[in-house]
Amino acid sequence: MRNLTELEQRAVDAPINLSDGHPRMSLTDRQQAIVDRLPELFADARRENFKDLEQRAQACFLSAIGQDCAPVAEGRVQSVYSSSVGTMVVGRVLRSRGPRVAVIHPTFDNIPDLLTDRVDLTAISERELMDGDLAAAERRGATAVWVTTPNNPTGWVLDRARFSHIAEEAARRRILLCLDTSFRGFDTRAQHDSYEILEAVGGDYIVIEDTGKLWPTGELKAGFIVTSRSLDDEMKRALSDVLLTVSPVILRLIEELAADAAAGGFKILHDLIARNREQIMATVRRLDIDSADDQDARVSVSMVRFHSPAQAHGVYSELQRAGIHVLPCQQFYWAQPQEGSASLRIALARDFEFFDAGLRRLEQATLEKSRAKVPGLA
Amino acid sequence: MRNLTELEQRAVDAPINLSDGHPRMSLTDRQQAIVDRLPELFADARRENFKDLEQRAQACFLSAIGQDCAPVAEGRVQSVYSSSVGTMVVGRVLRSRGPRVAVIHPTFDNIPDLLTDRVDLTAISERELMDGDLAAAERRGATAVWVTTPNNPTGWVLDRARFSHIAEEAARRRILLCLDTSFRGFDTRAQHDSYEILEAVGGDYIVIEDTGKLWPTGELKAGFIVTSRSLDDEMKRALSDVLLTVSPVILRLIEELAADAAAGGFKILHDLIARNREQIMATVRRLDIDSADDQDARVSVSMVRFHSPAQAHGVYSELQRAGIHVLPCQQFYWAQPQEGSASLRIALARDFEFFDAGLRRLEQATLEKSRAKVPGLA
Repeated sequence: MRNLTELEQRAVDAPINLSDGHPRMSLTDRQQAIVDRLPELFADARRENFKDLEQRAQACFLSAIGQDCAPVAEGRVQSVYSSSVGTMVVGRVLRSRGPRVAVIHPTFDNIPDLLTDRVDLTAISERELMDGDLAAAERRGATAVWVTTPNNPTGWVLDRARFSHIAEEAARRRILLCLDTSFRGFDTRAQHDSYEILEAVGGDYIVIEDTGKLWPTGELKAGFIVTSRSLDDEMKRALSDVLLTVSPVILRLIEELAADAAAGGFKILHDLIARNREQIMATVRRLDIDSADDQDARVSVSMVRFHSPAQAHGVYSELQRAGIHVLPCQQFYWAQPQEGSASLRIALARDFEFFDAGLRRLEQATLEKSRAKVPGLA
Repeated sequence: MRNLTELEQRAVDAPINLSDGHPRMSLTDRQQAIVDRLPELFADARRENFKDLEQRAQACFLSAIGQDCAPVAEGRVQSVYSSSVGTMVVGRVLRSRGPRVAVIHPTFDNIPDLLTDRVDLTAISERELMDGDLAAAERRGATAVWVTTPNNPTGWVLDRARFSHIAEEAARRRILLCLDTSFRGFDTRAQHDSYEILEAVGGDYIVIEDTGKLWPTGELKAGFIVTSRSLDDEMKRALSDVLLTVSPVILRLIEELAADAAAGGFKILHDLIARNREQIMATVRRLDIDSADDQDARVSVSMVRFHSPAQAHGVYSELQRAGIHVLPCQQFYWAQPQEGSASLRIALARDFEFFDAGLRRLEQATLEKSRAKVPGLA
């Protein structure tokens, strides 16, 4: 079975790519104005002290997504090329902390794929995490838990109260809490100050933050790895084998984009995602498809559940023939692929016209497949 | 013991940083003109088909360093964020090929550090590699050999004849040949077409090429992993967990810089490095220090060997106190650190004035330490 990224790679140059979760909509006017200043940002990056520039970009970005208490000034935020490179580096540290990690199920498959290089995995459900129930994972031998919040593809999210609860549970049980919050920028419910909670609770933690899902900057992006004091030295050492610094030019760009996001850019982004999600909802209602994802999801991807795996597969194939790429969902359910077999994931961070053209084709394909295969659907 | 990158990180904002091998000289006028076009390159990257753009950048860069036969059109060149991320990914593949890899000794310490996550290591000397002698490594259980050519920090290089010989030996013994050619752009002796040879010989190979050492672009860079047909599927799979694509904006920038390099830019770069190396030679001669590196080295770093570890350490400490950072060499000799204990590595990819100020301070420090510690030196 191909992994999700391999499927996404086939779609990169497709006529209509609704496959990968990377932001591919047009720049807003204000983002374009920032991009027009790239030579100036480049000159800034040459002139300025790197550490100052890096911490300013980190603070500006983290503050824009509600993380004012992130330990930037203490130097406990490390910049990396991307969240996935961050995952690889975290894997190096996890190995030294115990043999087994409980990983959220479902989630994007490269997380378990990269971690399984280093540690054994056991699945933990969104329901268990929502309840702050780490007992079962601990009985299965987990010494760390990996939570993607907001989650990809489901849009499931830990709000402040539930985040606090699980942080306390993890600290109480001395379980290392790893969080991938790459989609946090889309969901204000995830923008409670996690570091205020994590520092107060006092447990071991690692958080991967990410700028890469938010702005259509042609993959000019960075990830940030934030650690509890207890893991700081080990993380810096693990990362030092991989890079000296990320690009100061990219950090300057992130600083500018984060300032714009805080000053209205996020509103425009959230409106785009909500509008495209609403189009999917309308399609789902019209077609009497089983359901769209959690209607309250905010992330830049949407799961659509069909009546059967056969219907989902038929629609997927039909779309592919028409040059329209979405993702099947088995691979997200890394421990139990069949749980995802009736669902498809559709990327939302696209321009309207483009998105709607894909959705119209989805509608046609579903109608054809419904008529052919699902008795009882008109 | 701190690793080399940790030492380099301390020097990033130092008054005079001659520590890391990253290019930190001023842009040439023509490079500046390319940087001034970044908004245009960004727009190109949005418009164009990614695969076409990527292959054009790869072909343009590889051709500029003599690699016309690289299998770009076949899709056997994979772009990565950096050569170190490439090393991590190659590690994933090496593990499946056997338990032990013979790694060149000395070399930059992050190579053995990253590989040792995955496989056992055994050291192989530049002398053995120069002679094409893989028998000893094979007896020690190596199923792959890792060669950095040109090497960092020594400047040692495999010319065409010796490269052919070792490629043949590796193929004959069915040893996977891994090459890190990140410094190739500095040394025309390494710009024989490696892929012509490797493809003709027909063995398993992996090559990491790198744009990151050549141009002062604020870490806007890429690495490229090139594989023999036999390893192509496995490498693509291993890489797909790490990234979807690198930045098309950076690829466009690389294309432009490579075209400029081929049209005279490399000449300017080589002249800068040669000039700064000659300044070191002159200093070494004046001071009666033991020796500089291979006088014929061309890479953008230079090793200076002192009369004793104590003298090297004294000079290093004295320079640090004055805010001038260079690297000690023990860590390069990853299997036998004491072999590097009398040497320091000095970065050459710096502007003249800046470099000369550092060198003057080195001269003072050496004179003081010589008088104090080495009887017989005036």
